[in-house]
Amino acid sequence: MLFYSLDIIGTFAFAISGFLTALNKRLDPFGLFIVAFVTALGGGTLRDILIGRTPVGWMIDLNYVYIVIAGVFFAVLFRRKLNYLRTSLFLFDTVGLGVFTIIGVEKGIDANLHPIISIALGTMSASFGGVIRDILCNEIPVIFRKEIYATACIAGGAFFFILKETPLNDDWIYVITTGIVILIRLLAVRYQLKLPLIQS
Amino acid sequence: MLFYSLDIIGTFAFAISGFLTALNKRLDPFGLFIVAFVTALGGGTLRDILIGRTPVGWMIDLNYVYIVIAGVFFAVLFRRKLNYLRTSLFLFDTVGLGVFTIIGVEKGIDANLHPIISIALGTMSASFGGVIRDILCNEIPVIFRKEIYATACIAGGAFFFILKETPLNDDWIYVITTGIVILIRLLAVRYQLKLPLIQS
Amino acid sequence: MLFYSLDIIGTFAFAISGFLTALNKRLDPFGLFIVAFVTALGGGTLRDILIGRTPVGWMIDLNYVYIVIAGVFFAVLFRRKLNYLRTSLFLFDTVGLGVFTIIGVEKGIDANLHPIISIALGTMSASFGGVIRDILCNEIPVIFRKEIYATACIAGGAFFFILKETPLNDDWIYVITTGIVILIRLLAVRYQLKLPLIQS
Repeated sequence: MLFYSLDIIGTFAFAISGFLTALNKRLDPFGLFIVAFVTALGGGTLRDILIGRTPVGWMIDLNYVYIVIAGVFFAVLFRRKLNYLRTSLFLFDTVGLGVFTIIGVEKGIDANLHPIISIALGTMSASFGGVIRDILCNEIPVIFRKEIYATACIAGGAFFFILKETPLNDDWIYVITTGIVILIRLLAVRYQLKLPLIQS
Repeated sequence: MLFYSLDIIGTFAFAISGFLTALNKRLDPFGLFIVAFVTALGGGTLRDILIGRTPVGWMIDLNYVYIVIAGVFFAVLFRRKLNYLRTSLFLFDTVGLGVFTIIGVEKGIDANLHPIISIALGTMSASFGGVIRDILCNEIPVIFRKEIYATACIAGGAFFFILKETPLNDDWIYVITTGIVILIRLLAVRYQLKLPLIQS
Repeated sequence: MLFYSLDIIGTFAFAISGFLTALNKRLDPFGLFIVAFVTALGGGTLRDILIGRTPVGWMIDLNYVYIVIAGVFFAVLFRRKLNYLRTSLFLFDTVGLGVFTIIGVEKGIDANLHPIISIALGTMSASFGGVIRDILCNEIPVIFRKEIYATACIAGGAFFFILKETPLNDDWIYVITTGIVILIRLLAVRYQLKLPLIQS
């Protein structure tokens, strides 16, 4: 169904984003692949480990692995043209952010976890692949410093539970909450919205 | 009971310590919260993952999450006065170190693990939140370099098993071994005791 | 049996390699031990966590812990002579790489995972201890940048499944595929073979 294909688009875009980050660090092809892989699948892997859903997702459903491989091949071939695709890639990445969030929230509900924990799981699924990517590349995670990112996931996850209380059917809730994450993120990048810094 | 409330004090203090470390790195509020969170709960989370106790502790008992949130709010409000509270915070942190160690040792015993492994679990519960904090902040973990820290946990854990062989009742064993960790750590900081460096 | 003792040799060599890396970072003895430990056992630990084989290996079979301790003691005592032993240590390390790979592949098969995932598990078992070591030491993982390393594991793992289709008996498959990993790695270091860099 549609939601699943959005998941694929997100994985693809995350893999490319990981690849490009790693490329700047002069890693070899193996390193590039690993960084692309953890960027795309690291968040969901961490989520699965924390809730004890093992073997973790991509070990059971190899499609995720193939998509990462496809993303890396795509990035290798078109790495010099990716600049022209920047807007598309950013959009894909943003779609991924939204879809991963809601999928993560769902896994939390499936595991009978509290809404707060489910929102945390959704946020982690969507944004912690990038955290692991930055750790591997020896940087302080960018999502801890730059434009609103994980906060968009938290907002989308919170709306998910609010809308659950309404008569809206599930499909609509998915579309709307995914849309909220995407919208907040787009606005954040467009207007360079950051969380207010707390002065030490 | 008393021991549980000490656990709360420790979590609170660890969260504040994480927050303060992150503040120096100019992270945004989300980053500050995540670093506070992993400092307070990362050690226990790693312990739970390694022994397969999933969903991990804080996903089941949300009180830990609320305490971290409270700790972060406290730190935001009083961040300019925390210098005056340094001694209290250090004491709380040290109490946390002792309590977390013994709780971790217990979890190992519950899982039928060997005393050596249980001591390792206790040490990890108490000190590896700080390791993850330092990794996120892009530093070599401070507990690998500075005053005696994890070594105090190991000593407390070892005494736990020694005292188990005596007729002392469990409550006393808890108090004494937690006290040993605290005492060693206090002495270490007071007299700047470090493990002897091995010259390369 | 023989294979198991090779496993011991590999663990021993990996622990020493971790110790030596940490020594250059001026860590205290506790830090040195932890880095040696994760270098030797971190890859297998990650593998066990991902497939849900908990408590993880070294918590059940303490021999691994003892070997790491032995390796660290050995390294402390002979650290100034290790230069003379460099070739032996490198050989041990390479044997470890081969053996860990095939053991990891096996665990994947035991868990009914797809060959591709099993090869990934083998590669992780053998090479991700070094990744965690480098993260703790605040460096970009060396296996993402230098001579062919993980790629040797992937090749050995792939041959494992190819040979499974032949009438060769299992013992021979073990010996041959472990040998392939070792040979590729030896050639890679001897001739400084790197994966071709992808220019950005």
